[in-house]
Amino acid sequence: MRFLFLTLCLLMASATSSAQPADPVILVIHGGAGTISRATVAPETEVSIRAALEEALRAGHAAIQDGNPALDGVVAAIQVMEDSPHFNAGIGGVFAADGTVRHDASIMDGASGMAGASTGTLHVRHPIQLARAVMENSVHVMLAEEGAEEFAIQQGLEIVPNSLFHTDRRRRALESAQERERELQGSAGYIPEQWQMTGTVGAVALDNAGHLAAGTSTGGMTNKRWGRIGDSPIIGAGTFANDATCGVSSTGHGEFFIRLAVAHDIHARAMYGGETCTQAAEAVIHETLTEAGGTGGVIMLDHDGNVAMPFNTEGMYRGFITQSGQVVVKLYAEE
Amino acid sequence: MRFLFLTLCLLMASATSSAQPADPVILVIHGGAGTISRATVAPETEVSIRAALEEALRAGHAAIQDGNPALDGVVAAIQVMEDSPHFNAGIGGVFAADGTVRHDASIMDGASGMAGASTGTLHVRHPIQLARAVMENSVHVMLAEEGAEEFAIQQGLEIVPNSLFHTDRRRRALESAQERERELQGSAGYIPEQWQMTGTVGAVALDNAGHLAAGTSTGGMTNKRWGRIGDSPIIGAGTFANDATCGVSSTGHGEFFIRLAVAHDIHARAMYGGETCTQAAEAVIHETLTEAGGTGGVIMLDHDGNVAMPFNTEGMYRGFITQSGQVVVKLYAEE
Repeated sequence: MRFLFLTLCLLMASATSSAQPADPVILVIHGGAGTISRATVAPETEVSIRAALEEALRAGHAAIQDGNPALDGVVAAIQVMEDSPHFNAGIGGVFAADGTVRHDASIMDGASGMAGASTGTLHVRHPIQLARAVMENSVHVMLAEEGAEEFAIQQGLEIVPNSLFHTDRRRRALESAQERERELQGSAGYIPEQWQMTGTVGAVALDNAGHLAAGTSTGGMTNKRWGRIGDSPIIGAGTFANDATCGVSSTGHGEFFIRLAVAHDIHARAMYGGETCTQAAEAVIHETLTEAGGTGGVIMLDHDGNVAMPFNTEGMYRGFITQSGQVVVKLYAEE
Repeated sequence: MRFLFLTLCLLMASATSSAQPADPVILVIHGGAGTISRATVAPETEVSIRAALEEALRAGHAAIQDGNPALDGVVAAIQVMEDSPHFNAGIGGVFAADGTVRHDASIMDGASGMAGASTGTLHVRHPIQLARAVMENSVHVMLAEEGAEEFAIQQGLEIVPNSLFHTDRRRRALESAQERERELQGSAGYIPEQWQMTGTVGAVALDNAGHLAAGTSTGGMTNKRWGRIGDSPIIGAGTFANDATCGVSSTGHGEFFIRLAVAHDIHARAMYGGETCTQAAEAVIHETLTEAGGTGGVIMLDHDGNVAMPFNTEGMYRGFITQSGQVVVKLYAEE
């Protein structure tokens, strides 16, 4: 009887706690999940993408030294990716059906539970900065379109012409999507394809005080219309952070991530179900999302510095950096 | 040992399942939570509000007879409240800072996990119909502003001038909010007050096939600006439904409901934590939301027809109808 009780206690303890690694991960990022394989990425592009991911990791790492908050690391890492044409965020964001690039972003502070998000902005240079400004300087969590731009201008954020975000590669992708759409006219209907949803960026950071933060930034889906909002600016779907469990940022077919509340579901499985955050992240991507027919992945960093980067697509641009500065960057599934 | 095992099994069974009531509730609605008390509601208004709630319940009840889906009940009940000037949805929606009434709505089908939502529409007569059209006739979950209106027009939904939604009472509320804002100029800053967030409507239905659906519709927050999006159109915050657990619709200070992912959190506590949905709904409102400093409430209906309507405000317009047509309507906390 006493033995049974002790066994139960041990089982519960092993299911709910996770050990602090010797050199914990303090920042994990993604640059999108999708049809990413050695066959589709040119060797020189691969070198450049790996360099951009490492630059984002080092920028985020530097930003949370000297006792700075995890939020600083998230914003610093995401800004580097927003400035890189390789990712579907900021410069290099995908085109909406009307030929503009429209950005969504969100951020959440695991310490306070505060959050900010914006959707459909055309002129804000760094959407992740706008998400943070909404969180810190407005009474709201989420702002949309022209109203969000008005707030960004009032906040003194950098405003640029939409054309700054345009790249030839993304314009060709829009043309392909629209051609495919015309071909399908009159048939069972147009369904977005996996390659239209590649490249959202995100970061989760853990600061010296043990606080977590998570953020996500995207240009959304190629050829999106009707002011479509994906999961990236939705707290609980694209982004979630809670110091009691973990921080999460999502990438993939956003409609599935909204319906499944993917980021909050990972938190909830750990919070209520006794799983580790790593187990929860793996289960939500490889069971819940996959069984629903959705594609994509998440990055997860827990309060002990344990990291998970599950995805069910061919590849996911991803990487992490440890407290001591060790960098790991991966693109393909087999890495 | 065998006795212990049986006891454990019984405890687990009682914690995770709930019995089917003899006359199960098949539809529950709310018309908003807030500063609702006998002191603030005039007697003749009270009669009219109770009648409107009963009308919504009977319309929803009628809509899910003859094997019709729970979604029909949700839409029918919410449409009645969108047409009533007593609630902050459709006609009688609150004014945004720019003097327009801007609607948000969402709906979710607990059987399929599909969902639809729209935010910031000015001209759609019944925003809940738009949410359903997004779910059923687009590849997206959430559409915003002009894009959402374009989709609504393509879908042939009823389009009306924004002035149709205007009421004198709500215009006076906007004037009061803006006066208060001017008074506070230069002080610690303007914080929305509880009365600015009253009146969102919602419904959860259970059909003969045992499927759940939930929906929410609102004019948002009086004097909202910058394209503010509250919790009502956010799947997981304002609305969630899953046949395995329950359906939920929220009302209250939306920013808290987004950050806490209130509707999904209730589902998750039942799904992973072994609570009944009633226990989960009570805990999320009276513990999680209240401890975070947020105000509001939810309606919850589980797959067995058990209902909960917890709130932490003075009152909440609410009611339910059973399979046999028994109606219960309540406004105040002490009822």
